[in-house]
Amino acid sequence: MEMYDLIVVGSGPGGYVAAERAGALGKKVLLIEKGFLGGVCTNWGCIPTKSLLNGAKQHKHALEGERFGLEAQSVGYNLEKAMAWKQDTVETLRGGIGFLMKSNKVETVFGEAIFVDPHTVKVGETVYKGDFLIVATGSSPFVPPIPGGKLSHVLTSDEILSVEKVPASLTIIGGGVIGVEFASYFSMIGTKVTVIEMMDEILPMMDADFAKMMRRELKGVNFKLGCKVEEVTPDGVLFTDAKGAKQDLESELVLMSVGRRPNVGGLENLKLDIGRSGVVVNEQLQTNIANVYAIGDVNGKSLLAHSASRMAEVAISNIFGTTKQRMRYNAIPWAVYSNPEAAGCGLTETEAAKRGIAIKSHTTQMRSNGRFLAEQGKRAGGLVKVIASSETNVIVGVHLLGPYSSEMIWGAAAIIEAELRIQDVKEIVFPHPSVSELIKDACFALDHTL
Amino acid sequence: MEMYDLIVVGSGPGGYVAAERAGALGKKVLLIEKGFLGGVCTNWGCIPTKSLLNGAKQHKHALEGERFGLEAQSVGYNLEKAMAWKQDTVETLRGGIGFLMKSNKVETVFGEAIFVDPHTVKVGETVYKGDFLIVATGSSPFVPPIPGGKLSHVLTSDEILSVEKVPASLTIIGGGVIGVEFASYFSMIGTKVTVIEMMDEILPMMDADFAKMMRRELKGVNFKLGCKVEEVTPDGVLFTDAKGAKQDLESELVLMSVGRRPNVGGLENLKLDIGRSGVVVNEQLQTNIANVYAIGDVNGKSLLAHSASRMAEVAISNIFGTTKQRMRYNAIPWAVYSNPEAAGCGLTETEAAKRGIAIKSHTTQMRSNGRFLAEQGKRAGGLVKVIASSETNVIVGVHLLGPYSSEMIWGAAAIIEAELRIQDVKEIVFPHPSVSELIKDACFALDHTL
Repeated sequence: MEMYDLIVVGSGPGGYVAAERAGALGKKVLLIEKGFLGGVCTNWGCIPTKSLLNGAKQHKHALEGERFGLEAQSVGYNLEKAMAWKQDTVETLRGGIGFLMKSNKVETVFGEAIFVDPHTVKVGETVYKGDFLIVATGSSPFVPPIPGGKLSHVLTSDEILSVEKVPASLTIIGGGVIGVEFASYFSMIGTKVTVIEMMDEILPMMDADFAKMMRRELKGVNFKLGCKVEEVTPDGVLFTDAKGAKQDLESELVLMSVGRRPNVGGLENLKLDIGRSGVVVNEQLQTNIANVYAIGDVNGKSLLAHSASRMAEVAISNIFGTTKQRMRYNAIPWAVYSNPEAAGCGLTETEAAKRGIAIKSHTTQMRSNGRFLAEQGKRAGGLVKVIASSETNVIVGVHLLGPYSSEMIWGAAAIIEAELRIQDVKEIVFPHPSVSELIKDACFALDHTL
Repeated sequence: MEMYDLIVVGSGPGGYVAAERAGALGKKVLLIEKGFLGGVCTNWGCIPTKSLLNGAKQHKHALEGERFGLEAQSVGYNLEKAMAWKQDTVETLRGGIGFLMKSNKVETVFGEAIFVDPHTVKVGETVYKGDFLIVATGSSPFVPPIPGGKLSHVLTSDEILSVEKVPASLTIIGGGVIGVEFASYFSMIGTKVTVIEMMDEILPMMDADFAKMMRRELKGVNFKLGCKVEEVTPDGVLFTDAKGAKQDLESELVLMSVGRRPNVGGLENLKLDIGRSGVVVNEQLQTNIANVYAIGDVNGKSLLAHSASRMAEVAISNIFGTTKQRMRYNAIPWAVYSNPEAAGCGLTETEAAKRGIAIKSHTTQMRSNGRFLAEQGKRAGGLVKVIASSETNVIVGVHLLGPYSSEMIWGAAAIIEAELRIQDVKEIVFPHPSVSELIKDACFALDHTL
């Protein structure tokens, strides 16, 4: 029977990073994966969607680039080629993770893990023993029990990545990040898209001014807010609108993106505390069983790929490291890769109000920025918001809506993590011309002293 | 005669920011501009080039997007429309600066400033007096005394922005940032481009590995390194190549981009110390005349628009502020907006070696990154380099070559300014998938402990 320092179950951005980091420290590590290396993120999430969105953005640019001097005739979108590109990207990355495991001497086993006890996992008939166990089993799309929810034209976010033709119409149930990214994608390639959201606004991690601007900028997407889906029919969706009237929407396809649920099935023998949102963990990502850690979506703390990876590092530091880190959630960025993009890090105004934190905030229109104007023009919408503590002037939130948001936001994570104040950011030199300069502009608007 | 707290001469990114910041502090400010508000940056530099480059990138995408699913026929480039877009952008921004001056109660006068003495400036017959004077007169393209250098097909970077048709061929003399950006632009719109550089590598602010990769990725641009231009002829350029052989290159247009010189003409009456690279200033940007400050290209310290703006803030803090800041040059980012982009901040390996600073450095290929692969593919080149002090682990340099570089680099300026160490950056959460994650990867490669 093989003995390991660490057994990791699940090879998504939580599991494979945990295995990699432990391997790099010279530990004997086993990684168990029932499907493909990389988990949902690599195979049905972050990566395939970004592959497709990039091509769709280029398609949109080709259609709308005349003002910049671009001439193009018969612009079209070939879904088959786009899907082949996506698949090639996914397989390359999967291969990259395999290589990373090998180079860090991580042993990988494919198959369903059966948890026997906190030190024992079986795959098929083979028994593996480990000093430590990391549960990184992820989450799955939640399909609510709506009549008609199992009809064949109702797809989850996994399944919609395999459509073979561009649908004429698509109804997306749920206006969170996944719903909005698919809305943007399909609307860019010519599908008539409707998003039905039960709450009175989309994208709940954003302040309402950002969500409203996002709806405005997602041209061609029809949003139905405050609406409750009653039934999926063979031809579309029946819902009750915000005024209580019944409506019937025709739709070729329906995407169910109302949320995800932690994959906690099969963990029973570990006797873990499991709450409503997943496996209960402390700040060290340790469960109630001392040698068992739970990271990523399965603990329900922050359902983001990069949160899972950071949790992996924190868990490994606590298990094998020279530092004993704790997981902090105050500077985790998020990004929406729609067109336009959005990203944020730290507190929103709404969240600050809810928690009773006294803040000052300034929001700048992106069209005051040189690069934004040069590339988007004066009629395009975009926002930058900087939020600081009223008391200390420490930056506690940065929010972006517009081009490059997803690649600018890491700097916000850095300044929030480093607890820089408004006056510190005012002394940072931003490159000109760049959209990022707006962050400095917002800081000067909050405090124009020198 | 009008009396001012401050007279600023030159309305580029140094001068207009100085006027704005002083105005915001309630000072009575006069801004004198002989041409257009915004100076070279807004009118013949940063902004028009970025407007054109964006359109050219879209043209290139439309030509090469088939692998992403894009279909387009008869792809072409309409220079007239591109130029109109560029002009509209420039005029909008000029208008924006005018608005900014009004809203900060800055008085603006158009005309050539005649410096009478350190407190007195004339424009035409009108005399203006100021307690303080900021010289922000910028720089001009240097045209070396080469035979044929004044022929009509030899253009400076100002003049090439007004070409009326796409040239069949263009020879660029000088492979610095300006030369490379125009090389990228014209090669993307179909011109046959040759860059002749006297040194043995282009882009001297980069390490050689980056410059080499840039040359490789600027497909279609022919680089002639270590070559000395002897003469411009009516049909092209005569030069001596690296082996000492004479060569004759046919070229419809020639761009002279060998450098810029500070505009120090007319300053005589101020009796300023003027060195080889411009007006001599101390760390406060003060000249040898106590009430006269010199900021931006005219002092030759750092010929970048955003350096000028930062110098404006430092000068105003020293003149009117509650803080007395000094100008620091260690965390000023630079960006090249070619396709691919590049950007950097802080020390290169070359510079560290020259200064005898002990460093550790790691360079990562961008193709190990999910987003890069999804958008560029596995054959594209891109690099991320992180440099830290061997002694303290403080990050002293970050260098990027690849998409989004210009918008990611502000975070590097922030971490260098905040003196974060490798282990601090490892604890920052970067959004997934983003190219920016490579910065964290490089930090883990430098130190994989946890």
